[in-house]
Amino acid sequence: MTLDTIVEEIKKADTIAILAHESPDGDAIGSVLAMGIALENMGKTPDRIISEFPRKFKFLPGADKVKPNSNIEKYDLAISLDCADLRRLDGKEYFENAKKTIVIDHHGSNTMYGDINFVNPASPACCEILVGIFTYFELEIHQDLGSCILTGIITDTGGFKHQGVTPETFEFTAELLRKGVNVSEIYEKALEIRTKSNFELLKRICDRMEMFEDGKVTFTYITNQDEEEVNAEPGDHEGLVEVGRGVEGVEVSIFIRQVDDEQKYKISMRSTNNVNVSDICYLFGGGGHPRAAGCTIQGTIEQVKEKILKEVHNAMK
Amino acid sequence: MTLDTIVEEIKKADTIAILAHESPDGDAIGSVLAMGIALENMGKTPDRIISEFPRKFKFLPGADKVKPNSNIEKYDLAISLDCADLRRLDGKEYFENAKKTIVIDHHGSNTMYGDINFVNPASPACCEILVGIFTYFELEIHQDLGSCILTGIITDTGGFKHQGVTPETFEFTAELLRKGVNVSEIYEKALEIRTKSNFELLKRICDRMEMFEDGKVTFTYITNQDEEEVNAEPGDHEGLVEVGRGVEGVEVSIFIRQVDDEQKYKISMRSTNNVNVSDICYLFGGGGHPRAAGCTIQGTIEQVKEKILKEVHNAMK
Repeated sequence: MTLDTIVEEIKKADTIAILAHESPDGDAIGSVLAMGIALENMGKTPDRIISEFPRKFKFLPGADKVKPNSNIEKYDLAISLDCADLRRLDGKEYFENAKKTIVIDHHGSNTMYGDINFVNPASPACCEILVGIFTYFELEIHQDLGSCILTGIITDTGGFKHQGVTPETFEFTAELLRKGVNVSEIYEKALEIRTKSNFELLKRICDRMEMFEDGKVTFTYITNQDEEEVNAEPGDHEGLVEVGRGVEGVEVSIFIRQVDDEQKYKISMRSTNNVNVSDICYLFGGGGHPRAAGCTIQGTIEQVKEKILKEVHNAMK
Repeated sequence: MTLDTIVEEIKKADTIAILAHESPDGDAIGSVLAMGIALENMGKTPDRIISEFPRKFKFLPGADKVKPNSNIEKYDLAISLDCADLRRLDGKEYFENAKKTIVIDHHGSNTMYGDINFVNPASPACCEILVGIFTYFELEIHQDLGSCILTGIITDTGGFKHQGVTPETFEFTAELLRKGVNVSEIYEKALEIRTKSNFELLKRICDRMEMFEDGKVTFTYITNQDEEEVNAEPGDHEGLVEVGRGVEGVEVSIFIRQVDDEQKYKISMRSTNNVNVSDICYLFGGGGHPRAAGCTIQGTIEQVKEKILKEVHNAMK
């Protein structure tokens, strides 16, 4: 069984790198930190490598052990978490150079780029897959480990909201509460609290929100200049795409954000129901989940908007 | 035991009125509809009386049976749900005239104004108290009843977020999922989806948001004119007080809303931690929970703002 092979590889390895997708969200961060704690409990000293660690997750146990890069070039083992595609892997050089590689993920679009791939698209969060793996490893899910895992579950399910949430998700959370994990605090810190910069960005994206397709599609944006003006840090734009999706009658929300290059935008899309936004993002070299996906498109705001709205229009026919 | 007396009174009564607090939120609505279904399952034909039923809850089972008033003057039994104080009870004339009265609530500030009072301030929602009661009554909590109860739990806990959420809350939700209740759909409809009018109000309260006490207090408002301009319906201001509370460093958020009388404002307050906003609202004749409370104050926006900020300042000392 795959899980036995994973245990064997971990046991054999002296040096282990734990990686996740670029622009890491709560599930990526939670997965890396949880795996770090789990491997330590198995007697290993893994490296957790994340190039830009979002400030809001600094409260999590093990966050202080994360480093932006490493001077080990050739790891015995590299583990990629919550990342569908090697191109999106933060620190992919460590993965490519490693002697052995493992991919653990819950994206249906995963390209199975590891020597060992453990992918379950039915799972609402990569962290929820880890619960099963750690249980199989006979590791006790104590407070620290539980806090990291819960962070991934809460952020990737929008606070137990999305369709993929299972009875097991709720039962696992009940169990963590009984073990003394402060679910409410994690929820607030990981999902609810907006930085002041995020609040300033919220104002701007609300004021700029446009509706298309009879109110079924929302479009909004932020630029480099916005981010500078509000002193935004990595992660400060998180959650803004959800605002459009939350408006009555909206089926697709589009949020675009200028990246360093002036003529390049990162697109985040959400869908409430029928439109598969992962398919749309795939057309532009991106991907994700049917209801939450992203890609990068070259052009001015107007050009990018036209390109993406055209594909959304086609998908809604 | 109180619950036995409650069952006896229900069995004896031919006419029963089910009531809740004015400006009903999801917990009030969920409680009334759940009690309605439960009493029907016990062979009764209760009247669910709610003078202004918020549009967003119309999807719930039994919503079509709610009426704004009744021509029965003297009910055999009146049941008040989720209402701390007789003054805040919508349709209190039916309660005052009833031969027998029952109060079921989870507000610590409940004044015990019924002949029988079943109040549990440790419960995160009135609907969660009903789970215990219905279980004691040996009623099966099927899909319809579960949907109403879950609506109350989800809205009063901010989507399983607040401190009062218990392991039982999560276990109960897991059980409902297994019974086929669409938790995600209820979550979206009851808590997540904003009407277009609510989104327009959101823009305005964000633009007007002011910070006090070194960023620990936010204040914002909407007027009658705003509500007219955005075609607001009852309930369209719901959730706006949460926006300020969600900003990093904020301990108290204040949202005021003009009521029909030009010189009168309804105040909603939220607290993240130490400040007991129920105590502050009590000073103005209102009340609620330590972290979520409300009151009504006479005056212009500036006068109301000054009055409430003064008391918040005193409470933060």
